[in-house]
Parts: sequence; C-alpha cells; structure tokens
Amino acid sequence: MSKEDTECGEHEPTRMNADDIESVIAEVYDHIEPDTAERANLRNVATRLSSRAESAARERCPDADVLQVGSTARDTWISGDRDIDIFVRFPPTVDREALEQYGLEVGHETLPDGHEEYAEHPYVKGTVEGFDIDVVPCFRLESATEIRSAVDRTPFHTQYLEQRLDDELAADVRLTKQFLKGIGAYGSDLRTRGFSGYLTELLVCEYGGFRPLLEAAADWQPPVELDPEDHGRETFADPLVVIDPTDPERNVAAVCSAENVARFQHYAREFLEEPRVELFEPDEPEPLTKAELCSHVERRATTPVVIQFAAPDLVEDQLYPQLQKSLDGITSGLNDRGFDVLRATAMAGETAAILVELAASERPAVERHEGPPVHVRTHAEGFYETYADDPETYGPFIEDGRYVTERPREFTTAREFLESDRLFDVGLGAHVETALEDEYTVLVGEEITALLDAFETALSRYFDPRP
Amino acid sequence: MSKEDTECGEHEPTRMNADDIESVIAEVYDHIEPDTAERANLRNVATRLSSRAESAARERCPDADVLQVGSTARDTWISGDRDIDIFVRFPPTVDREALEQYGLEVGHETLPDGHEEYAEHPYVKGTVEGFDIDVVPCFRLESATEIRSAVDRTPFHTQYLEQRLDDELAADVRLTKQFLKGIGAYGSDLRTRGFSGYLTELLVCEYGGFRPLLEAAADWQPPVELDPEDHGRETFADPLVVIDPTDPERNVAAVCSAENVARFQHYAREFLEEPRVELFEPDEPEPLTKAELCSHVERRATTPVVIQFAAPDLVEDQLYPQLQKSLDGITSGLNDRGFDVLRATAMAGETAAILVELAASERPAVERHEGPPVHVRTHAEGFYETYADDPETYGPFIEDGRYVTERPREFTTAREFLESDRLFDVGLGAHVETALEDEYTVLVGEEITALLDAFETALSRYFDPRP
Repeated sequence: MSKEDTECGEHEPTRMNADDIESVIAEVYDHIEPDTAERANLRNVATRLSSRAESAARERCPDADVLQVGSTARDTWISGDRDIDIFVRFPPTVDREALEQYGLEVGHETLPDGHEEYAEHPYVKGTVEGFDIDVVPCFRLESATEIRSAVDRTPFHTQYLEQRLDDELAADVRLTKQFLKGIGAYGSDLRTRGFSGYLTELLVCEYGGFRPLLEAAADWQPPVELDPEDHGRETFADPLVVIDPTDPERNVAAVCSAENVARFQHYAREFLEEPRVELFEPDEPEPLTKAELCSHVERRATTPVVIQFAAPDLVEDQLYPQLQKSLDGITSGLNDRGFDVLRATAMAGETAAILVELAASERPAVERHEGPPVHVRTHAEGFYETYADDPETYGPFIEDGRYVTERPREFTTAREFLESDRLFDVGLGAHVETALEDEYTVLVGEEITALLDAFETALSRYFDPRP
Repeated sequence: MSKEDTECGEHEPTRMNADDIESVIAEVYDHIEPDTAERANLRNVATRLSSRAESAARERCPDADVLQVGSTARDTWISGDRDIDIFVRFPPTVDREALEQYGLEVGHETLPDGHEEYAEHPYVKGTVEGFDIDVVPCFRLESATEIRSAVDRTPFHTQYLEQRLDDELAADVRLTKQFLKGIGAYGSDLRTRGFSGYLTELLVCEYGGFRPLLEAAADWQPPVELDPEDHGRETFADPLVVIDPTDPERNVAAVCSAENVARFQHYAREFLEEPRVELFEPDEPEPLTKAELCSHVERRATTPVVIQFAAPDLVEDQLYPQLQKSLDGITSGLNDRGFDVLRATAMAGETAAILVELAASERPAVERHEGPPVHVRTHAEGFYETYADDPETYGPFIEDGRYVTERPREFTTAREFLESDRLFDVGLGAHVETALEDEYTVLVGEEITALLDAFETALSRYFDPRP
C-alpha cells in the first residue's frame, strides 16, 4: 500500500497484491483441503456409526432420528480434522431423564469402547479408526428458540448452513478457519476466547467469502453488528455481534474478546497488504533459554514476581477463567499497594503460575493516608485523635482542607505482600484459592528462571509479545 | 468533650472549659493590650504626622484631607505593632498624574527621611521614633464601588469598622489576630494566604466576639458565605466568602486558602476543647540537626530530591506564587515520568530550594506506551509501522483492542530528569526559570543535608508536619 493510500484512507489492494493473494490462497488451500481418500474414509465411518446409532435409538423411541452435525457434516472441515459429531434427536414428549438414559444407551451401543463425558447432558465419546466420535442426545424441536439446553441448538445451525454453503463458500470457510488458527484466534473455548467454527461459517456466508470478509474486517469499527436474518431484538455490549440466524436473542460472537477482534483486523490488513502463507501457520516460538530470560529481565530493569502452585484439576474452560480472575485480583492487590504492574500473564500446564512484572517492587516505609475534610467535624475529630499521638505516624497535617497523615506501610516489598495472608483478600478463582491455601511458591526477579522447565514457550511469547 | 458529646454531634464546651477559656483569654489579653504609655506614644506620633501631612496636602489642593487608617487608627492593634498608615485624600477632580505628584510631595514633606515605594501608586515610607509610617495618596470618593485603585477602598473600610467596633469588640479583634498569628494563619500576603486584618475585624463584628467566632468556625461547612450588608451579587468559588460591606462585588477572604480555613477550624476546636495560652504563640520549631534529618530519611525510606538555586530578587508577594507554580510544575513533571511524589515544599531565604520527596526515584528501563485502537485504521497502521521493526521496543501487541508497546523510558532516575533540559518543559515561575537557566544544583537523598545551613527550621517543620 502506498503512502498516498494511507493518507486518503483508501485501502484497495493493488493488482500485484491481488495476484499474490490468489496464489497464496491456492497454496494454502492445497494443504488444507481433504483429498478424496480422506473424505471417503471419513464418510464411511460417519455413515456406519450414524446408522448404528439410528437403529439403537429407534429401538427405544420409534420417533427418534440421527443427524450428523459440525464441520465434517457441512464439508467445512480441514484436512487432518478428526471430529465426527452424531446427534441423536428425540421428540420433546420424551422427558429429560429418559432422554439422558436413552442417549447413553445409544452412545454405548454405537461406541462399544466409548466412555461417558458430561456437558449439560451426559454423552458418550469414543475413538473409531482414528476419528474422535461424540454421540450426543438432544431434543428435536420446531424452532431454536424452544431449546432446553445448548446442544438442542446445534441441529438448527447445521440445517441453516447446509442451505447456504455451496462448495466455493465451504472452501472459503476452510481458508478462514486456517487463517484464524494461524493467528491464534480460532476457537470459542475460554482460554482462546476467539472465533467459533459456526461464527466463522456465518461470517464467510455473510460477506460472501474469505477475501471479502478480510477486506471488511480490515475496516471494521467495533462494535460490529451483523444480523443475517434481520430478526435481532436484544442489544449486546460485545465488540462483535452476530445475531444467531436460528435464535434472535443470541450473539454467536459473545465469547469473542476485543483482543481477538482486533487481532483479526490486524492480520487481515497484514494479509491484504503482504499476502503470505506463514500467516496461516500457527507460530510456535522458540523456547526461551535461561540466558535469554535473564537478559530480558536485565534489559527491562523490571522485577518479575511469580506465584507458582499446583494446577487445579479442571477442564480448560473452567481453569482459564479462574486463572484470569486470580490474575486480575493479584494485579489489583499489587497495584493498590503501590507495586506498579507493567504487564502480567497466567500460565498453566502440570503446574500453574501467575507472572506479574512490576515496575516497582519496593516502596518507602511510609504512605500517604488522606483523612476526612476538617469541616466534617465528627469524622475529622475522630481521625485527628486516632493519629495525633501515634509515634509511628507523621502528621496529621492539613492539605486542601483535609487531614493527611503519613503512616507506616503494611508492605514495603511485593514479596512480603505475596507471602502474606492478605493475598487471600484479593479476588481469586475458587479452585485457585484452594490450591494456594494448600501451598504456593513466590519467585522474585531472576528466581523466575525456575519456571523455564514448565513454561519455556509461554515465557518466550511473554518476552516477545506480538499482535 | 466527652465521648457521648462526640457521638451525638454536640460540641458545647463544658462549664469547666468555659472558666478555663476566660482565664486563658485574660492571660493572653494582658500580653497583647498596648498599655497607656504605648498608646499615648503612638497617638502623639500619628497626630503630629497627620497634621504635617494635612498642611502639606492643603497647600497643593485646598480640598484635600487626611485620614488615619488601619489597626492603629481603629484601636485593634496589638502591643508591639509599629505600623501607622496615613492616607491623604484628594477629590476625584484631581487627575491621576497630579495625585501621584502631590502624594509624593506630601509624603516627603511629612517624612523628610522617607523613601519612595511602589504599589498601585507610588507612596512614601519612613521611620519616625521607631514607628513604620506609610503616607499614601488616594481619591476621596462617594462610594467604594467607584474606586480607581485598591488603596481608595481603605478609607471606606476604616469608616465602616469605626462605626461598629466598640472597646469590647476591638479587644476581641486583638485576641483573634493573636490567635491567627499563633496558628500561622494571619496575613493576606501570598506566602501565608491567611486572614487579613480587615477580614479578622469583619468576622469578629459579624459573630459578635472572639469566642462566638471560634464556636462558629469549629462547625463551619465550607463554602462559608457571609454578607454583613446583605448586598452581594456575585458568586465566588472560595472556601470562605465575606462580601465586602463597602463593595458588593468583592470577597474580602478571596486570598484565604482552604488550608488556612481548615487550620482555623482545627485550632478553634482545639482551643474550645482544651484552652491554652500556647495556641496564641507562634510555634518556632527547633532547628533540625543533620543526624535527625538523616534519621527521618532513613525511617521514611523515601528519596528526597532538591533543586537549589539563587533566590530571585523579588518581594515575597511575587516570589512565593512563582515558587508555588514551579513546585507544582516540577511535581507534575516527576509524577508524569513515574517518580511518585509523596510530598513537596518550596523554601526561600538567601538561596531558594524546591524539595520533592519521592516514593520512587528509579523506574524500569521500559515504559508502557498505549497506541490507538486497532480499528482506527490510519492511525493504527501508522503506530504499528513506527514500532514494528524498532529493536528498542517490545511489541506492538494488542490489549483490549489497542496496540501497546513497551519502549525505553527517557529517564530511569529522577536525577537524570532534573538535570536535563526537559525540566524546562514543566510550568515554572518566570523568574525561577531565569534563575534555573543561570545555575542550579540537584541534591538527592542524604545530599539534602547541604540545605541545613539555610533551611534548618523549614526542614524541621517539613519532617514534623502539623495542622
């Protein structure tokens, strides 16, 4: 893009770029399109298991049917994807207990080596010929607005998209998913808080393809509001709002963070300006060495502090929100006590760690403490009497009509605070709090090199932050 | 005052206190009332000089007259006061140039050894038998609203108060002035920003004496608005508003700071609760020793920094506002760069010093730098391109939808900033700026002991701050 383009606010890709874009797309597409054998293989397994599930379901409820859902059903899957989702639908006259019982029985008959998992309903999960199969019971309803649990909605999504996705759009969905994976914004799990598969498919349909979507996203002015069926009735505070075509009260992009919306915009511009295959490839940074870590800490002249503890035994969708809450609480606790936080992150694997990088890890022995305005007589007299004869306190004196004292600080180092019981006064995730009550370690400064064994990649990313 | 009193919000002095109050007042009054000889002496000098001034004025303008003004004219002066103010009034038909010429001639004839000083008009000042005499020309007007300069107003003040002050109120004015001197809140000069003599007299008249004034002040809820003549038309943003009885558009207390209003409230309560003579005695702290200074700095674990320079050759009413402005500017300059200011003060004598006590005198090598939201495309692209390939900068990365970088800080120590030219980017008083351009010294930490020679008392006050 030329300088003139930037200045007049126009962002049309030049012809040269347009050619580049097509050749990059072709190259990426070659990698991600499942070939004939892979497709046939998947179709065989899916068909076999679907009919097995259908027989088992009909035995229990003659009115039941089976629906294959998800990207493998809609031909929007990427070569290498191994997920087959089989939904077993029962009429709403079946009660919930029966649905759960039938669902598990059908699941076990379909996947004799499967095991039970629990979401809103229990369901059966198993592996067949290398594919990951879910057999999930749900209700067959007239409309998505009548759903009783989130899984009941899925068949409506599949129906809606099947009517709209032709082969060309399905190919562009694949490209878009791979692009979002490449930039780290794919997935509506609560660790990523990115774009779900369904959201991606809706966006590609709505804008008419991968490239028009990227061109639009490059110019998005959040909040961006899309309503394919023009039936939305609610307002949402999210940066990206896509009203579910099957449910006017639901924002499909509710979980997508402002950061991921901005990230998509950033990389959309990058791609349009300088198209390249690397943008479609998730970037796994080189692990950080001890020498590099020490060199960053020295160069930045900050004080990193870490709370390390046993990772609570939770699924990621429960763990990461708790880590985030704990990170926010500890960050506030440090900031409130004058230990200025520059940046912070949470990491989890076999162990968990909250890393907070401080601009100031030591504070003076005294802190300013503002009392009431002198004219608020009863409070003011109480404040004055409390401190007037306290040998630990400077003042009270008067500033701008208020009493002010300088009193001893509770904590003069971040370590003292982090090692004290006051740490438990900040907002912590429930299971994180339990883990900390059990045991935790505080690392300060170059002591954080002890984290490298567990988090060499996460630390590498932290010290080389990118969009 | 009992605990019950505090809780129910009542603050009536008990009978025991009332007796104490009267005996303290009697003791103070003994010290401050001029005795017969002192009064006679002052009256002799004042009368002699007034008639000398009157003859000289009548020679030049038969319609001129002479008025003795100020506390010595109104019998509200305190034993030891040496100021006699003689105002020479010319009719408004005299033009301003003639007034100034006549005024100086009359002044020199009245005070042959006097010298000229300049306020709004030039006037003559001299010493006679130990008294400080001002001979000031002004216009004789029908009403204070017609005044042409501030001195024209003074005769109206004297007239107004002479009609209202009886001997008892005059005695209470003396007490109140001495009380305000004792607590450091007397004087409308721009160093003190306290209660002027005229304001004190109006307050005593308005509340009917020293004690009722203190009882009222103890419960003031600023802004406090008094309008003795009930003719005010303007609104003022000051904490204490006393509409001038001779000029509805003027707040007599305009210069009185919130700090001094609060100070008066604080000590009014102190006196009513525990009356004592010491409250009427200005408290000159013991000079601070080097060992004490070092012990305070160590105990507080702060970093005091000082800018010391040659005191600009200005009268206090010009110097102190400039010092205050410079203090505010330097404090902001330090805070803005992350050097958190705990408290600060300016000191002036033969040399001048701005002392700023820092909670943090060192900062990391990097600072967070927030860019535009990613969606503001042209700005966002410009920001990204500026920093993307800068090897000194971490990022850009995305937080909450914005680009953020961590870039090298300009100053990592307060000393570097104070010794740099960037010091001159902050708001400085004009003459302070000139003085600093000439030369200044930066002292850090215990180096500030070098200030003790010049400011041992001011430093003592700083490290033992009181209301």
